[in-house]
Amino acid sequence: MSGQNSDQLHRTTLAIYTSIMEQFNPGLQRLAALGNNYIQAFQALALTSEAYFNALCKMGEQAMQSMSSRLLGDVLVQISDSQRRLTNELEGVFRWFHSEVLREMDDNVRLDKEYILNSRRRYEIEVRNQASALERQMRRGVPQDGSEYVHFLRECQREALKEEERRYRFLAEKHSGFTQSIAYLMNKTGGGLQNRAEGWKDLVNHTRESRPRTPSRLEDNIVRYNEIMFNNT
Amino acid sequence: MSGQNSDQLHRTTLAIYTSIMEQFNPGLQRLAALGNNYIQAFQALALTSEAYFNALCKMGEQAMQSMSSRLLGDVLVQISDSQRRLTNELEGVFRWFHSEVLREMDDNVRLDKEYILNSRRRYEIEVRNQASALERQMRRGVPQDGSEYVHFLRECQREALKEEERRYRFLAEKHSGFTQSIAYLMNKTGGGLQNRAEGWKDLVNHTRESRPRTPSRLEDNIVRYNEIMFNNT
Repeated sequence: MSGQNSDQLHRTTLAIYTSIMEQFNPGLQRLAALGNNYIQAFQALALTSEAYFNALCKMGEQAMQSMSSRLLGDVLVQISDSQRRLTNELEGVFRWFHSEVLREMDDNVRLDKEYILNSRRRYEIEVRNQASALERQMRRGVPQDGSEYVHFLRECQREALKEEERRYRFLAEKHSGFTQSIAYLMNKTGGGLQNRAEGWKDLVNHTRESRPRTPSRLEDNIVRYNEIMFNNT
Repeated sequence: MSGQNSDQLHRTTLAIYTSIMEQFNPGLQRLAALGNNYIQAFQALALTSEAYFNALCKMGEQAMQSMSSRLLGDVLVQISDSQRRLTNELEGVFRWFHSEVLREMDDNVRLDKEYILNSRRRYEIEVRNQASALERQMRRGVPQDGSEYVHFLRECQREALKEEERRYRFLAEKHSGFTQSIAYLMNKTGGGLQNRAEGWKDLVNHTRESRPRTPSRLEDNIVRYNEIMFNNT
């Protein structure tokens, strides 16, 4: 930047405003639309997950009514509850994403169109005013090396760059927050889920071991069949 | 079970077969259908997530080309990559769920219809044979207390209960495996993701601090505006 003359400085500053107006904001608008699709797809997933684990829970409740599989029924109900809780927690993350990221992106795009156009317009007026003042002073014979004008242009460029940076920082901050909330959920939930899943595995194995096999005419076939079909569980 | 007479035993055993045929298997079929919806919804989510983070990545690449926001662009590209990797890992879990749970449920329902019907038919034939043999012996005057017949009925009931239990165990084992694979992913990924998200937050804050503010005529307005709009980031 230091090597730029006043014309280059001015053109670069205009290019920064143009980039916000023609690249960043349309990109943000596209992103907000894609984000809405993403959230809708998550909501659809949450509904199918709910339907699936409700149905699994019902099968667990049936098992709890049976003579053979009360413990397994209890495990199935617990698994269903656990998955439904996990989906609820994820819904919380997506609600945050919707209100704190997507809605703000939408609002910013809407408000920023006019704001950035005005900023650019204000900058152009300021440049014209400063340039005229410089010209007037030179005509009056006041000695001028133009350094004050270049300093002004540099300050304006710094401000435009800050505008641009703030917009990218907003994006980076919001999305690292999204990742962080997913990571937080994973770390909060992962350990307990692992322990519960191991507990269920032990209970399931317990039901396998608790009744020693005494093969009979019928059972010979049953065992052979189940080894293929129900994965010898 | 110990207090049941031979009629009660027989009726209960038939009820177990009926419950597998009329409750468990139709339930499993419904579950497989709901599971296919669940997987399709996940695939749709994965597509929208891919589209969203590809778009975010492109904005990061734009930022990397800018004069103001190279570091923020790098953070945005990293966030996008990280989310895309997470989606890929989740796709692996759902692929496992599809091949190891849903497809097996589908296969089992298809094969079990005939198998359980045959088991029940075989059981009824055996009961008739045993009852006739008992009757023949009693007619010949061979002393019978029926205890052998009751023992036979109890064994058959034990086998029917085992059939039922195996089916619920299959469900419990598969679904605790599903939860376990989610927990494994959470525990494997959560810690690293948390660290990366914290690193991004630090980098974002660094870009905020690295340029001290020197308010000017234009910036006064910009700061005021951005405090409202870009959440003072």
